[in-house]
Amino acid sequence: MQKLLHKYTVLVYNYKMTKGGRTMKVSIIGATGYAGAELLGILINHPEVEIRHITSESQTGAAITDSYPHLNGFYNKKLSSMTDVDQFADSQAVFIALPHGHAMGIGQQLAAQGIKVIDLGADYRFRDEDVYEQWYKVPHIHRGSGAVYGLTELYREQIKNATIVGNAGCFTTASILALAPLAKTHLIDVKSVVVDAKSGMSGAGRSASLANNFAEMFDNMKAYNIAGHRHTPEIEQALTEFSGQEAIISFTPHVVPMSRGIFSTCYANLGVGVTPEDVDQAFHELYDQEYFIRLLGRGGYPAVKNTRGSNFCDIGWHIDPRTNRVVVVSAIDNLVKGAAGQAVQNFNVMFGLAENTGLTKIALYP
Amino acid sequence: MQKLLHKYTVLVYNYKMTKGGRTMKVSIIGATGYAGAELLGILINHPEVEIRHITSESQTGAAITDSYPHLNGFYNKKLSSMTDVDQFADSQAVFIALPHGHAMGIGQQLAAQGIKVIDLGADYRFRDEDVYEQWYKVPHIHRGSGAVYGLTELYREQIKNATIVGNAGCFTTASILALAPLAKTHLIDVKSVVVDAKSGMSGAGRSASLANNFAEMFDNMKAYNIAGHRHTPEIEQALTEFSGQEAIISFTPHVVPMSRGIFSTCYANLGVGVTPEDVDQAFHELYDQEYFIRLLGRGGYPAVKNTRGSNFCDIGWHIDPRTNRVVVVSAIDNLVKGAAGQAVQNFNVMFGLAENTGLTKIALYP
Amino acid sequence: MQKLLHKYTVLVYNYKMTKGGRTMKVSIIGATGYAGAELLGILINHPEVEIRHITSESQTGAAITDSYPHLNGFYNKKLSSMTDVDQFADSQAVFIALPHGHAMGIGQQLAAQGIKVIDLGADYRFRDEDVYEQWYKVPHIHRGSGAVYGLTELYREQIKNATIVGNAGCFTTASILALAPLAKTHLIDVKSVVVDAKSGMSGAGRSASLANNFAEMFDNMKAYNIAGHRHTPEIEQALTEFSGQEAIISFTPHVVPMSRGIFSTCYANLGVGVTPEDVDQAFHELYDQEYFIRLLGRGGYPAVKNTRGSNFCDIGWHIDPRTNRVVVVSAIDNLVKGAAGQAVQNFNVMFGLAENTGLTKIALYP
Amino acid sequence: MQKLLHKYTVLVYNYKMTKGGRTMKVSIIGATGYAGAELLGILINHPEVEIRHITSESQTGAAITDSYPHLNGFYNKKLSSMTDVDQFADSQAVFIALPHGHAMGIGQQLAAQGIKVIDLGADYRFRDEDVYEQWYKVPHIHRGSGAVYGLTELYREQIKNATIVGNAGCFTTASILALAPLAKTHLIDVKSVVVDAKSGMSGAGRSASLANNFAEMFDNMKAYNIAGHRHTPEIEQALTEFSGQEAIISFTPHVVPMSRGIFSTCYANLGVGVTPEDVDQAFHELYDQEYFIRLLGRGGYPAVKNTRGSNFCDIGWHIDPRTNRVVVVSAIDNLVKGAAGQAVQNFNVMFGLAENTGLTKIALYP
Repeated sequence: MQKLLHKYTVLVYNYKMTKGGRTMKVSIIGATGYAGAELLGILINHPEVEIRHITSESQTGAAITDSYPHLNGFYNKKLSSMTDVDQFADSQAVFIALPHGHAMGIGQQLAAQGIKVIDLGADYRFRDEDVYEQWYKVPHIHRGSGAVYGLTELYREQIKNATIVGNAGCFTTASILALAPLAKTHLIDVKSVVVDAKSGMSGAGRSASLANNFAEMFDNMKAYNIAGHRHTPEIEQALTEFSGQEAIISFTPHVVPMSRGIFSTCYANLGVGVTPEDVDQAFHELYDQEYFIRLLGRGGYPAVKNTRGSNFCDIGWHIDPRTNRVVVVSAIDNLVKGAAGQAVQNFNVMFGLAENTGLTKIALYP
Repeated sequence: MQKLLHKYTVLVYNYKMTKGGRTMKVSIIGATGYAGAELLGILINHPEVEIRHITSESQTGAAITDSYPHLNGFYNKKLSSMTDVDQFADSQAVFIALPHGHAMGIGQQLAAQGIKVIDLGADYRFRDEDVYEQWYKVPHIHRGSGAVYGLTELYREQIKNATIVGNAGCFTTASILALAPLAKTHLIDVKSVVVDAKSGMSGAGRSASLANNFAEMFDNMKAYNIAGHRHTPEIEQALTEFSGQEAIISFTPHVVPMSRGIFSTCYANLGVGVTPEDVDQAFHELYDQEYFIRLLGRGGYPAVKNTRGSNFCDIGWHIDPRTNRVVVVSAIDNLVKGAAGQAVQNFNVMFGLAENTGLTKIALYP
Repeated sequence: MQKLLHKYTVLVYNYKMTKGGRTMKVSIIGATGYAGAELLGILINHPEVEIRHITSESQTGAAITDSYPHLNGFYNKKLSSMTDVDQFADSQAVFIALPHGHAMGIGQQLAAQGIKVIDLGADYRFRDEDVYEQWYKVPHIHRGSGAVYGLTELYREQIKNATIVGNAGCFTTASILALAPLAKTHLIDVKSVVVDAKSGMSGAGRSASLANNFAEMFDNMKAYNIAGHRHTPEIEQALTEFSGQEAIISFTPHVVPMSRGIFSTCYANLGVGVTPEDVDQAFHELYDQEYFIRLLGRGGYPAVKNTRGSNFCDIGWHIDPRTNRVVVVSAIDNLVKGAAGQAVQNFNVMFGLAENTGLTKIALYP
Repeated sequence: MQKLLHKYTVLVYNYKMTKGGRTMKVSIIGATGYAGAELLGILINHPEVEIRHITSESQTGAAITDSYPHLNGFYNKKLSSMTDVDQFADSQAVFIALPHGHAMGIGQQLAAQGIKVIDLGADYRFRDEDVYEQWYKVPHIHRGSGAVYGLTELYREQIKNATIVGNAGCFTTASILALAPLAKTHLIDVKSVVVDAKSGMSGAGRSASLANNFAEMFDNMKAYNIAGHRHTPEIEQALTEFSGQEAIISFTPHVVPMSRGIFSTCYANLGVGVTPEDVDQAFHELYDQEYFIRLLGRGGYPAVKNTRGSNFCDIGWHIDPRTNRVVVVSAIDNLVKGAAGQAVQNFNVMFGLAENTGLTKIALYP
């Protein structure tokens, strides 16, 4: 295994806390899900952000700490209802953490008022709304929104000027980051791609369900939605765009008994004559300057625990001369880089802040 | 999802316990590892077996219950040393549960005395000992042993008459059982096979190791030995034999935070014109009469917990018309069907006993 | 730590399976909960038992394997409704695994027909129905039932002739077995007893609940129902009876992130002049002949994993000369010795079968 | 359950990051254990701290990221040897995270040079070094050190002026914080105290050990060191001091299958005539102004997950009128409030910084 690359000659965290105003005002729609709570946890410590409104349709009027006692001492605002759209007039940006289909209506209203929107769900992830409708079985009611796909490292320039960002999904963030260097450089056949992905249980959301009960899933694992998971077209959209070839891939999600974490194992056939060094170069050129991507090099093995609670994506790659395939393995925290952390990363880009502002938390290990 | 097939018109457990002699005498070499302990747990309840000797080189002279208090009340024999080969003269069969490289010497001695050998390690798994030497980096000192590969369902006829059986590995049992129906019927391109496999932590064996410490692996997962794991040639040997084509596959093992269990996700390109019904038929024809294989049908989802502590292999398959790939998912308990249970299944076959004798334990759920 | 006592000079499992009739007919009311499923798992392998009817009010008409795929290959009967009381006329015994309050009505009807009843819930656990009503807030509608408390080792003689047995609870089985030797011999002050008990998550039953969701309870633990848990009066009833003194105890239950298992830590003040040898003797006299109790001795440390899936209760005890307290620690599997296993043990006693018939399963380790 | 008290009228995290010098220089001796790594994780984000030297005797010369890849991108200094005492001359404070017995020698040398020492081990926790020698079986070679016990909330004034602080242990921090309000106000009989404590597996430290292997401890729990654990005299020292009565307590530690976390269940007899309101008042008077203590009130239930990764101690209390006992339950993260976090809290106090500087991290939930 190659040594991890220590690329940060200037460390980014040599800041000093001083009393001072928080200049940005934001709100969170759908604060009681896991992604909403993670957003709160990040934004409370974001030095430039003041949280104005947090909403929940099922818990309207209650304190957020009734749902999340771990926020006690930090935050005890009451939850309002998103139906009161006027309240958001004092916010420069609104994060939406709702199930798919529920962000389009409010998103359109907010954007019309010039409020920037970062949607953590799927509503704004697809350039072609027909693809959305086909996979999500919901009519898209905000076509032509101009939304930008929110995978920061790969769409940063568009995000800078976006009014609406469709934050990338958890499986997709890990998988697209793993494959983008090779797709962009045409080193792989994108039609040969197989993505075998594994998620911790928080990915299933915070709702009572027998299938998600502790006793059912502890010491257990399984696959689900084979050949039909909705993150499939999201990965295909990116790979198609990067490679210029139509990517049709196999994507298999699994649940494993962890709280958090995505581990993605991505297989692809290498083109004729592609060398290991070509592969190495593709990763380094694309990512060496990226703060949140840690390249473990050829032969490197990420572990989800090294990313837990942090916004990092750790990536290693392996070349199998016997099959002429490349295997890329990547790990993220599904609630951070796969949801709330990347949403804040996108927010920072949209407002011209240092991209890692509020996101320098180190993984909780062990 | 198709209904699970209930093929057992005559239930096998309608036996009655009566006092009576246990007719078969066996010994276990290497009883203090997890596979050895699992063998003990099974054989103690096997109605035809009397355990004669159990060995351990590191614990010679100690009681097995010093290592495994859960055996208290059932078994408290002292551990002997395998170097005393004469002791095995009273045994009709010897199970060997040693690290690879250590079974060949004693195996040769035992076989020479007419004692049947079931080796749970890798030493006797390969028809071509050169393949063994290439992957295991150990000289094979018992060439031409006539050993039979011990994946019972697929090699039953040879096992019946074998003197030495090389019990199939854990990843390989789950993976070969998943792919054999399609390889045998030539429905897939065996060169396109990708096997993405996940194991519980008992697969790492019972030895102190920082990498296997609880705090390191809890809420964690990772891949290892990508493009180099030694179960790769074992799967290739079987697929090559079944398909008549040289199979070179991608195999990626992972560790996930479970005690036990193998989950194998197998991808392959379907041949031109292959229909979903062709695939269904391949599975049903090969396995409908198999006691230990539970077909969950097309669209079925196995879960490792349904096999925990049992000798079953649960299999489901999925066809993706977008990619023309088939995805077969299978689950076993790595210590039972992936090790000790299959060893006893092979033993039963070798001695003409009902194949599930001693193996009717139901999974521990939840 | 003392050596574990190997008391079994004659092993009990040297039986031989032979084809033959299963002579006892039983039914299970409430088969779809975890205790019901565990009962099924045990009774399917019980050599004397034929299962006639299994019921579920919520799943009437469905196959039990729809709820529990791990039973596939063993059992696929349809679930009936308990409201059809006539169906039980062919059963010699009926196990009831319903929430408290629901067993009394059907229990009375069955007993009136001469069918023996083993209730796994709380309805029949209290000699004084007023205590039941006070703690469970439900009117007791079957007063004077003659029910016997089903903690086998301690109430065996009464159980032999009982028509109705109120199977002991999970926390209570572990705790009463730990304290009974000392209460019966008056070595401890029963008013000083503190029981600090820990349960795996299957103790919460099989129902969807946010509090029991995997992501909520993984890497987590907490206490609940402090000074108010309903197992308190059950322990007090036993200790009062054994000691002849009114026992009022502190009982604190906790949930810890395990599938199964009860671990009970019991504290009591020793009487003046009580010696360590007195304590040892109390345990050995009461339990040395008990198959399902494994005494780890003074200084012994049980671990729940050594009992997982088995009907054993492992007990160790510790004397603290600094405080003159004894600390007794015990471990069981909550679904086996704490529910279904003990129910079958009671059944065996009621029908004159060897007490461990069908219960010789070894713990699943690791 | 009472509402949690939101006492923070002025939130403490409304600081703004600005580029600027970090004014305090510190070193860490023993950086490769879990406590050392946690210290690094905290101090890297501490706005006033510059880390000068980190040491490891077993890994001297290696990068810390070789041991802890999760620190990649944040910190990649090489580990030095503590035997080079001169290197610490540039440090104003040194944190020592070594096994007990190893801090006294270096601690004495550092203190002699006027460097402040915060020892996370046991060497400096006891006022009476004889007690240390009796429980730890090691001669105390730095008697009369003037060390102060480092449980910040209860010894803050002494800590302010201390040269050496003996940081409180993990079990003890949770347990003493739970009992101090009642001991100080003489509401309980300190001789009646029973502390039943549970720890996650990181408490066992980072060393390879069969007992700590994943497969051994997953789905398992057990007690250890009953009536002999070394945290016993530490709790007794504090309770004796607070109450003015000699406290001799029962303390039982357990390991449960979590990465992190301490849960302490503390029982004590209430004095005659003590009312529930007296108990409430004792907690509120002592802790209402404490940032890192969250009172969940009478009837409150802490959960370790609400503290995971944070420096909070959550406390609830319950009064049992039947037994006249109080049960106090508390939860902390063993590596933060139970080790590294409290060490930094003490450091902040010693140097006149705001006590929560660098410690405002919110728990990672779920």
